[in-house]
Amino acid sequence: MTKISTVAIVGGTHGNELTGVYLVKKFANNQDLITRPSFSSQVVFGNPKAIEQCRRYIDKDLNRCFSRADLQNANLSSYEDTRAKEIQKILLSPQGKACDVIIDLHTTTSNMGLSILLSGEHPFLLGLSSYLSLISDDVKVCCSPKSQNAVYLDSLSKLGFAIEVGAVAQGVLNAELFQKTEKLILAALDYFEAYNQGKLPEIPSFITIYNYIGAIDYPRNAQGEIEAMIHPLRQFQDYQPLNPGDPIFLTFDGQEIFYDGISTVYPIFINEAAYYEKSIAMCLTEKKTVNL
Amino acid sequence: MTKISTVAIVGGTHGNELTGVYLVKKFANNQDLITRPSFSSQVVFGNPKAIEQCRRYIDKDLNRCFSRADLQNANLSSYEDTRAKEIQKILLSPQGKACDVIIDLHTTTSNMGLSILLSGEHPFLLGLSSYLSLISDDVKVCCSPKSQNAVYLDSLSKLGFAIEVGAVAQGVLNAELFQKTEKLILAALDYFEAYNQGKLPEIPSFITIYNYIGAIDYPRNAQGEIEAMIHPLRQFQDYQPLNPGDPIFLTFDGQEIFYDGISTVYPIFINEAAYYEKSIAMCLTEKKTVNL
Repeated sequence: MTKISTVAIVGGTHGNELTGVYLVKKFANNQDLITRPSFSSQVVFGNPKAIEQCRRYIDKDLNRCFSRADLQNANLSSYEDTRAKEIQKILLSPQGKACDVIIDLHTTTSNMGLSILLSGEHPFLLGLSSYLSLISDDVKVCCSPKSQNAVYLDSLSKLGFAIEVGAVAQGVLNAELFQKTEKLILAALDYFEAYNQGKLPEIPSFITIYNYIGAIDYPRNAQGEIEAMIHPLRQFQDYQPLNPGDPIFLTFDGQEIFYDGISTVYPIFINEAAYYEKSIAMCLTEKKTVNL
Repeated sequence: MTKISTVAIVGGTHGNELTGVYLVKKFANNQDLITRPSFSSQVVFGNPKAIEQCRRYIDKDLNRCFSRADLQNANLSSYEDTRAKEIQKILLSPQGKACDVIIDLHTTTSNMGLSILLSGEHPFLLGLSSYLSLISDDVKVCCSPKSQNAVYLDSLSKLGFAIEVGAVAQGVLNAELFQKTEKLILAALDYFEAYNQGKLPEIPSFITIYNYIGAIDYPRNAQGEIEAMIHPLRQFQDYQPLNPGDPIFLTFDGQEIFYDGISTVYPIFINEAAYYEKSIAMCLTEKKTVNL
């Protein structure tokens, strides 16, 4: 792998996820924090109009607008489709080269701690994640298939990834999570610098990852209205094992619904506010150890 | 006080506060739950368009649109101003009499448990609150001046009050809080029935209340942007004493800001998402014991 020459930190891809918005504001006003000798850094506010209105998006979810086909489709003209094309241009070098690394900052109402969301099991990013796990106990690493990630903003770079921080409500700043996220980002920049200098720090020889295998929707009636809530025993239990027969939902009448899968899985994004409309009550992962 | 003849339960006055929305849906489909022999009950979805879009409001905060002047002002024609006038009509009896009791259901990102928000120290509602404290340990009682409450939906009735439940993120259902809120509402209806029957249950001889005395904004720069977050030691510490000199905010650079009041107060609505735009970081209350 060649050296890293450009890094972008993006906040407010979803306008009501304030941790990223205010970290990018801070970095914009304190460029020295994100400056390292061997590469250039830039910050980007993902969705300025949504940030202004403190909403996830204006017309549609910006973080689903980055498929190559959509970026080339001139007929797509919603605010977010237009903004996606702008962001693609902003992140190109004067020579038309894509940014080497994108760190896209998100928050979630799920109890995901400091989750690093990767596209596939990229060896360099697994190494980075392992290093970041040494910085904070709250770090977890999730991988989803490249086909799924291809619509995300961070797919604009080969070394793109998202940091998903929670539990925090939309429209709220949590000081503790703000500081932890900042520390993680600065440590990631240090890691890139060390890589460029050929002086990568020692990291553990293996890492635990959570591989995305699917999603579960809420029980719904014929009109599409939800008929049950996340079971209290699962609320905030992201990354904890869900076994066949475990309670998973509770109807409004207090009836328990049990998980009918055939093996143990590890749910994440449990009760994420923005996923009700996406028909996702939680995502399921498999836990796996990978040698580094 | 005459007997109670009409009770209204309102949910979704703020469209992204789902506990109230789904409780009202449940009651609408199960009228027997809220039916009592001696009075009539109705349910109302406060802000249907905001509920549909899972937003707090469309044009402006509906729960600030109920001053008598605004309700009579035909020039106010925003979606919420219009809806406020509709709700006033919906809650009138055929004889043009206002509803006796309104229970307006809200949620908050602050850690307010099951808070009962009263307009002034109304003896009957303090008795009700005392009874509800026996139902759940999470019940707290807050009183604010009638002048302040006069813009709220529940001010349409003499015995109006709000139930404010949290901490829960906007756009999220928390099953445990859903069930606790339902239990509280049904117990309130039982209390009204007992009152009408002349058989009020025994209640403690005193009650602790929190009287609103003011609000504190976030530190802001000349452009009105916030410059600090709620201090981690205060996050989720609603109803806990804040003493002069206690840390209250943390700047984005990690500098602590201390409370410069002259006496101990009890903050509530700490870090409520919807209050950033209202310039409220927290509300301050005084703790007081009232004999019943």
